[in-house]
Amino acid sequence: MSKPSLARGTRDFGPEQMVKRTFIFDTIRRTFQRFGFQPLETPAIENLSVLMGKYGEEGDQLLFKILNSGDYAAKLTEADWQQDARQFTTKISEKGLRYDLTVPFARYVVMNRGTLSMPFKRYQLQPVWRADRPQKGRYREFYQCDADVVGTSSLLCEAEIVMMLHGILRELGLTDFTVKINNRKILTGIAEVIGAQGQEGTLCVAIDKLDKIGKEKVLAELIERGFSPESCAGLEPLFALASEQAPFAELRSWLATSDVALKGIDELEEVWQLVEGFGLENPQMQFDVTLARGLSYYTGAIFEVKVNNVQIGSISGGGRYDNLTGTFGVPGLSGVGISLGVDRIYDVLEELSLFPDDQAITTRVMLSHFDAAAARYGLKVLHQLRQAGLNAEMYPDAVKLKKQLDYADRKRIPYVVLIGSEEMQSGKLTLKNMQTGEQKSLTSEEIIAELKR
Amino acid sequence: MSKPSLARGTRDFGPEQMVKRTFIFDTIRRTFQRFGFQPLETPAIENLSVLMGKYGEEGDQLLFKILNSGDYAAKLTEADWQQDARQFTTKISEKGLRYDLTVPFARYVVMNRGTLSMPFKRYQLQPVWRADRPQKGRYREFYQCDADVVGTSSLLCEAEIVMMLHGILRELGLTDFTVKINNRKILTGIAEVIGAQGQEGTLCVAIDKLDKIGKEKVLAELIERGFSPESCAGLEPLFALASEQAPFAELRSWLATSDVALKGIDELEEVWQLVEGFGLENPQMQFDVTLARGLSYYTGAIFEVKVNNVQIGSISGGGRYDNLTGTFGVPGLSGVGISLGVDRIYDVLEELSLFPDDQAITTRVMLSHFDAAAARYGLKVLHQLRQAGLNAEMYPDAVKLKKQLDYADRKRIPYVVLIGSEEMQSGKLTLKNMQTGEQKSLTSEEIIAELKR
Repeated sequence: MSKPSLARGTRDFGPEQMVKRTFIFDTIRRTFQRFGFQPLETPAIENLSVLMGKYGEEGDQLLFKILNSGDYAAKLTEADWQQDARQFTTKISEKGLRYDLTVPFARYVVMNRGTLSMPFKRYQLQPVWRADRPQKGRYREFYQCDADVVGTSSLLCEAEIVMMLHGILRELGLTDFTVKINNRKILTGIAEVIGAQGQEGTLCVAIDKLDKIGKEKVLAELIERGFSPESCAGLEPLFALASEQAPFAELRSWLATSDVALKGIDELEEVWQLVEGFGLENPQMQFDVTLARGLSYYTGAIFEVKVNNVQIGSISGGGRYDNLTGTFGVPGLSGVGISLGVDRIYDVLEELSLFPDDQAITTRVMLSHFDAAAARYGLKVLHQLRQAGLNAEMYPDAVKLKKQLDYADRKRIPYVVLIGSEEMQSGKLTLKNMQTGEQKSLTSEEIIAELKR
Repeated sequence: MSKPSLARGTRDFGPEQMVKRTFIFDTIRRTFQRFGFQPLETPAIENLSVLMGKYGEEGDQLLFKILNSGDYAAKLTEADWQQDARQFTTKISEKGLRYDLTVPFARYVVMNRGTLSMPFKRYQLQPVWRADRPQKGRYREFYQCDADVVGTSSLLCEAEIVMMLHGILRELGLTDFTVKINNRKILTGIAEVIGAQGQEGTLCVAIDKLDKIGKEKVLAELIERGFSPESCAGLEPLFALASEQAPFAELRSWLATSDVALKGIDELEEVWQLVEGFGLENPQMQFDVTLARGLSYYTGAIFEVKVNNVQIGSISGGGRYDNLTGTFGVPGLSGVGISLGVDRIYDVLEELSLFPDDQAITTRVMLSHFDAAAARYGLKVLHQLRQAGLNAEMYPDAVKLKKQLDYADRKRIPYVVLIGSEEMQSGKLTLKNMQTGEQKSLTSEEIIAELKR
């Protein structure tokens, strides 16, 4: 009998982790709902025809593929055996595991566009799977928490994302964070203005590293990648802007010759005004001209969230895309969305000790008993406590009190009710606070009142 | 561009279904927690070495198997190609999808037995996957909701399962249900007493059909399967008992010569007494000597729940097993558990119109606006509503009021706030009840008070 093990890159979440993860999920879900987003769940298994070609060559390889069921090999021919692995795979596998929540969402919108009322606001909290090499902080199965609006290009949606991020992070107890914002159109415009039209991809890869490697090395990289010295000189204003919070006027004068850049600046400025209109207390948002997030996808605003007092990558990212469903033959649906990474948020809250102690999903009180009569007596009390909405349990076996209290301790149950012959006679039970050791003699009704406080 | 589709046997759950499913999941989860069960989540992907051989030959075939990642075919030899499909599969697939929640739970207990405090009470609400042929009501991806206690043989656990089932079903609004109970030991004893020792499997398959085919046909089937006429005659008392609610005395006299049967009856009777001790109002439990549930697994109590006023199979089942983790080399851990089927519960609640209208996860109020100034004015109101904990949204685009109200209607938003120039001047907004059409002129504080009522 070999010892059982977890598949590489996967995890169990035991009770203690689940309590903490539930705190995160509940906070995110509640805030999404508060902003009018509706829940959606899609299956873990999708047809490979839906998934393939949506995440680039590398993504296709990182898809978990499922063997066809039944006698999948029966129809294979000699010729099939001799094909290369990729073609062979298509003969034995037609399904795969969800790789993100965006492509299944696009599929859902396309398949239900006749009945969906637009704009459609959905959130989705589900695991995704990637056959990445597992390493610290990178798993093969992990949750994504997405909220998207499609069917409108209103910038109110961008402003709402800023509001929602502030709401979620503050409800999680985070105070020192920055919502970084850029606009794809500004990046396009910069490339135009410096005479490197269409090169914004290369430009972004380089300026994305500004924080880490500094201005000189960024310029060196651009030269190496074929940018002219004139283009590099044209970037001067960018380095001056990079540290300012909302330098829209400076941007306008620098990029005055690019229509697309001006459009991007207009959009950004409108988002700032809308957030101001909401009356958000102490906005923690910052324009970041170096923010890119895999350009190919986004067409307008780009978001990323950084926690400032913890060494960790971004905990959230998103942006506007103008063609979510184009790949499924339905062009022209604009949308904007945000995705939150639960694993990183977990690590941040752990490091900052922000998880609340007292969660509603754990047991609040345990009944202990000295003998069978006490256990029998306790049943009615137990039923009463539960009917009052309290999470309660009774130690199931007839063991010494010490062992019962140890169990309560290990399970971090804050209160224990002691039932012995004296208690049964008087009807006054002993309520013990497991943290302070304090004991009180109370009726079951008084115990309920005390614990519900 | 081909039209995208769902993989066979899988489903999307759109907002309306999600609201209803959430009602079911929340009710189950809350009740599990109220009884002191703690949450556990295990990965969707398990090593096939963990899954194979646990569900019988048929189960092995119904496991979804995942292709090894990377260049899985590179190391295959000519000899591998020529092996039969089953052996070939082991060369290209080492992982599979979770088939139920019990085997992963057993794996978790074995892997963490050094740190788990026993008895360990866990609940788990997660999807499972089976490569079954899809048909009405049978899916390839579906949720199970399990609660189990391991590490104790106390019959309090059985009684708690009865309590928990009553709690869940009544909170769901169900009134006419029956928790059927049997004990594996009684079935073993009956086979002993009628001289068909070890034949309880065949016996159960036959008497399981008593309801449908009647006594004569049950006996005919037993004769056909090799039971002697004497054995069949010995079954006479069973048919008399089958319709009684808790005929323990009759059982005792019939099965007096079988120790194991008497043990089973003692256990059952104790469960009945414990439930009585809890003071459960109007217990809906019934002894059912024909209840078997795939005997191989269970060693004590067996449960099943039937909804009486709906034509549907059982919505829940479970029982006690004495060797959960034996298959992973850790024998002797007794446990008892219950599993609820969300899809059938959904169908039952739908048929009986028991889903509540008003769920907390939907939008409570939408802000509409006549022009840009009104929209701008509405931002602060929107922020206020949300900060008061209300789910609120504003229609994002500048369109006619009619279109905004249509959106609210389709999304079943019960209240709309109308903002126009008059409203902005007076500070009194118009709150419209979308169901009655009634309109009130209120300040934003008054609106909050009204909607929170």
